[in-house]
Amino acid sequence: MRIDIITVLPGLLEGPFSHSILKRAEDKGLASVKVHDLRGYGIGKQKSVDDYAFGGGAGMVMMIEPIAKCIEVLKKERDYDEVIYMTPDGLTFDQSMANSLSLRENLIILCGHYKGVDERVRQHLITKEVSIGDFVLSGGELAAAVVTDAIIRLLPGVLNDETSALTDSFQDGLLAPPVYTRPASYKGWEVPEVLLSGHAANIESWRFDESVRRTKERRPDLMEGDISLGNGDSTTERNDN
Amino acid sequence: MRIDIITVLPGLLEGPFSHSILKRAEDKGLASVKVHDLRGYGIGKQKSVDDYAFGGGAGMVMMIEPIAKCIEVLKKERDYDEVIYMTPDGLTFDQSMANSLSLRENLIILCGHYKGVDERVRQHLITKEVSIGDFVLSGGELAAAVVTDAIIRLLPGVLNDETSALTDSFQDGLLAPPVYTRPASYKGWEVPEVLLSGHAANIESWRFDESVRRTKERRPDLMEGDISLGNGDSTTERNDN
Repeated sequence: MRIDIITVLPGLLEGPFSHSILKRAEDKGLASVKVHDLRGYGIGKQKSVDDYAFGGGAGMVMMIEPIAKCIEVLKKERDYDEVIYMTPDGLTFDQSMANSLSLRENLIILCGHYKGVDERVRQHLITKEVSIGDFVLSGGELAAAVVTDAIIRLLPGVLNDETSALTDSFQDGLLAPPVYTRPASYKGWEVPEVLLSGHAANIESWRFDESVRRTKERRPDLMEGDISLGNGDSTTERNDN
Repeated sequence: MRIDIITVLPGLLEGPFSHSILKRAEDKGLASVKVHDLRGYGIGKQKSVDDYAFGGGAGMVMMIEPIAKCIEVLKKERDYDEVIYMTPDGLTFDQSMANSLSLRENLIILCGHYKGVDERVRQHLITKEVSIGDFVLSGGELAAAVVTDAIIRLLPGVLNDETSALTDSFQDGLLAPPVYTRPASYKGWEVPEVLLSGHAANIESWRFDESVRRTKERRPDLMEGDISLGNGDSTTERNDN
């Protein structure tokens, strides 16, 4: 899988993409993430990428020409399944969208900045608009990094079995149960006895009950309709975000 | 405002915090973000920060001792308003939580990794559990960066007037209207005439109508109850995430 990210702040994405699973996925040849500096496609001597909004008002707008040029160059090299624009009024990103995007071959992600991009970019060049949540960031870069991380960790071979994505929260509609590690007692705070019992069936049943309890308490919306309780499925695990 | 981030992957956060508005906020002395390598508080010669889960099962669990030590050291230096843990089963982060956190003085954000942290950390050391959405990331670092960015850009003086956060999407319950910049015509794709008319009242009214139309179309949930239509408030603007 290949992801091309178009941004005016490429440096912001250096850390996220040179560490952790993204680095591992690249090293294993399973994914390739390329960050493109939009300024390289800027206009005139100044390499401008933005201009004032038609109709007035505060804030700069990212121009269509540099973006169109950059996308055009990329499309000459390969076909893209989606050209994604990160924007707060896009479709809300969730695990199911991550699953489906992880099956694609080539993606472009355009990061908005300033007041946003010229609307004609959205109308003519973008195929999917995505939001990571109902909050505003200073740019689309962190949102693009979040989407990239969530997608790439799902690619077969990126995670080892120990952290298999199939058992994540949200994959099976239940939140993960509590986890504990050594020491068994810390400042008088104890690990639940069942986890020290060595009784595998009891542990499994405790974990399933805790998953259900936690989901009911915190996210009853996840349970509506699609969970049959008491089916002994205790494979829920967690990764943190 | 001060934010202390505790992580096992400090390098991942270097890019996000040395660019864009976070850098500007630090330069202006308005905010200070410190990243702490949890491994510095690790146990034994190996500086271990994780161990196998009690009760068995795949995946490592972050131990309570290094985390408790790190938080203790920080708390000796100042009082903290919240000790936040980034986790997919936390309260969903949104603009209203960003607003309220931006009023605090000192925050600690703990990034989970591996299978998560020992439950006793959550029970005894954490005051607030936060999720940025219903998806799973390879760690809490990008989520912590998102929360930090969303909070810090709200601090008075961080953004200039041009990009004032008061007019963001979600601050007033409406999505932003389309924006356009030069050229007025590109490949036959035209800017709406009204924006070129110079008629301020018509432009304002067009923008408000477009905001309402877009919100109705994409996010009708935002409009339930709290918007009085046709009040001429056309100050909605956008920043991208």
